[in-house]
Amino acid sequence: MPELEAVGGLRGIALAAGLRYQGRDDLLLLHFPEGASVAGTLTRSQTPGAPVEWCKAHLPAGRAAALLVNAGNANAFTGRRGRRSVERAAEAVAEALDCPPEQVFLASTGVIGEPLQDDRMVAAIRTAADGLGELDWGRAAGAITTTDTFPKAATRRCEIDGRPVVLTGIAKGSGMVAPDMATMLSFVATDAGLQPDVLQALLVRAVDCSFNCITVDGDTSTSDTVLLFATGSAGRCDAVSADDVRLADFAAALDALLIELAQLVARDGEGAQKLITLSVLGALDAAAARRIGLAVANSPLVKTAVAGEDANWGRIVMAVGKSGEAVDRDRLAISIGGVVIARDGERVPDYDETPVAAHMRGREIEIEVDIGLGQGAARVWTCDLTHGYIDINADYRS
Amino acid sequence: MPELEAVGGLRGIALAAGLRYQGRDDLLLLHFPEGASVAGTLTRSQTPGAPVEWCKAHLPAGRAAALLVNAGNANAFTGRRGRRSVERAAEAVAEALDCPPEQVFLASTGVIGEPLQDDRMVAAIRTAADGLGELDWGRAAGAITTTDTFPKAATRRCEIDGRPVVLTGIAKGSGMVAPDMATMLSFVATDAGLQPDVLQALLVRAVDCSFNCITVDGDTSTSDTVLLFATGSAGRCDAVSADDVRLADFAAALDALLIELAQLVARDGEGAQKLITLSVLGALDAAAARRIGLAVANSPLVKTAVAGEDANWGRIVMAVGKSGEAVDRDRLAISIGGVVIARDGERVPDYDETPVAAHMRGREIEIEVDIGLGQGAARVWTCDLTHGYIDINADYRS
Repeated sequence: MPELEAVGGLRGIALAAGLRYQGRDDLLLLHFPEGASVAGTLTRSQTPGAPVEWCKAHLPAGRAAALLVNAGNANAFTGRRGRRSVERAAEAVAEALDCPPEQVFLASTGVIGEPLQDDRMVAAIRTAADGLGELDWGRAAGAITTTDTFPKAATRRCEIDGRPVVLTGIAKGSGMVAPDMATMLSFVATDAGLQPDVLQALLVRAVDCSFNCITVDGDTSTSDTVLLFATGSAGRCDAVSADDVRLADFAAALDALLIELAQLVARDGEGAQKLITLSVLGALDAAAARRIGLAVANSPLVKTAVAGEDANWGRIVMAVGKSGEAVDRDRLAISIGGVVIARDGERVPDYDETPVAAHMRGREIEIEVDIGLGQGAARVWTCDLTHGYIDINADYRS
Repeated sequence: MPELEAVGGLRGIALAAGLRYQGRDDLLLLHFPEGASVAGTLTRSQTPGAPVEWCKAHLPAGRAAALLVNAGNANAFTGRRGRRSVERAAEAVAEALDCPPEQVFLASTGVIGEPLQDDRMVAAIRTAADGLGELDWGRAAGAITTTDTFPKAATRRCEIDGRPVVLTGIAKGSGMVAPDMATMLSFVATDAGLQPDVLQALLVRAVDCSFNCITVDGDTSTSDTVLLFATGSAGRCDAVSADDVRLADFAAALDALLIELAQLVARDGEGAQKLITLSVLGALDAAAARRIGLAVANSPLVKTAVAGEDANWGRIVMAVGKSGEAVDRDRLAISIGGVVIARDGERVPDYDETPVAAHMRGREIEIEVDIGLGQGAARVWTCDLTHGYIDINADYRS
């Protein structure tokens, strides 16, 4: 865990509410100063959890007073009762912090389909509100985990218009992690002062090249939520566009922060032993490159080959072929660990597997696919598929 | 293995050619009488194997003299050399059987990207042609297997226009089995006498509700091939449409045969312990129902839950939600083993898991999802995801 920068204006607390887990933190409450902005991206699932619907309703206003996150119960597919739980939680936070309930953002992660224990939640909210103070970001990262094997946090310093600004964020996610969405849970705070619409534009771009480029198992969660809060403590910036040159450094820092968090999630994929970085070049456009990359990254045959440290590049060909994107088999080139294995649709004549086999034994696997058709490129991250994934998921709920 | 009906007019042989495996059959040669029809469906992969391209070129003519299948090497992503191997094999068969090479159909299954040993193949073809006789369908089914744990064959008797007709078929496939394609390898022969276009229409319909409704791992092979041969030995039928009432019994028998073969493939999914039948009702249309069913069938979280005998129905909700199809979460109903677990978007109030838990311990798992929006229905088959899949695939090629 790196040294995490404190974000001015923000108070918070992580604590053990006993909502599902015993003897560990499972509740996180953050309190933002008046006038704080919020931006967010949410799961595209057609069966979203109740907290996702709540955030969707209140994000357009762009103002946040608080964030409440619980781990262990997703409050998803819980019907009217689940929606009522969300309202009760928001009202309890609003009462304790003297803010409007619609400025309280909520996220839940854990089992789907089980009703939340409202009374215990409300009691825990009161305890949390009384204990607010300087946030321990490390504990915050731990409090939102489920099957994660380590807490995930990252931090960046940058400048806006010559003024120093801090970005600190946390993420959780290990299984039910899939792309083309707004991702698992991640919460980022900055002391920058930015308008909600500018913040939102910056976040969407950053999510697109980070969380939307990772997959563990191709299963999209009902609860995926990324929220970015800006307290404004470092001073306001009157930029009205995400393309304002004064925001270039901040945008680059935000991209880097989210990529770091996304890589941490892929690296901690359930049962993962290796982080796989897939670079796709030469596709018709960037979107096609990303879809090809995700087809490879979601292939259980590619992922088990990596788990077995087997440079079975034929399975990469297979996955490219099933991506549904424009591909010319006879122009395809594939490299692993920087060694060209196949070019122009067949294995190179003098292929020597020795250096590739050595690369496969490492913890960081680099695969490059050149489609040979255009200029579209993308990078995608995933992990190997091991016995650990089966162990975890054949016995998670019980 | 059931008692398999001999198909009149057909001669064949399965033998050990030593192309990759030692001490087991790995080559199948069938010889059809003059005038035999052929229909086929092929993988939609953008990186198809050389034999797939050969079949694609010669299927439109609708005439078949022979079929040659080898197991152990897919002859896929083998470039010009692979295309030359296909031509050499077709020419060797044509010479041995005195038929045009373009009436020789070819299929290969096994490792991708390794050149085929042409000379050994041609020598084996000559041996095979000399040994043609009444086909042992059981041996034929065994000769085309790779990671399959049992040979797959099925047979049907039916009538066309009052005349008895036989259908016998084999299939292979265990991993790299995914939908929206023409499937792994399956070869079906009948003594019916039907025009190629009628045969093709009947086959496409039958594949659509059988092989295109199974998945093992969502990975689409480069070599998927289904071929249906009609020798005409039972007499010609002059039907010009697949909808001719005289073909109703034959069409039903073909559907049933292909569903039986497809279920055998799903049941023998790599590492599988359980066959899962997913029934989707109430979708907007049948195509939507199938896509929802496949989203559930391809979810590693649903498949590992079944492996763990855990009725974790929340993961079914998740998979329905990520399918991309129209879904109204608050109308969704889910049953397992005939027991309604959730209705109208939440768990039923009096849910008792006991009978569901008992069902989960069985070998045949029945899941029903009612979307509650329309009349679209589909059935999809898959298997659970176990440690066996990892064992097989982390160490298949090496």
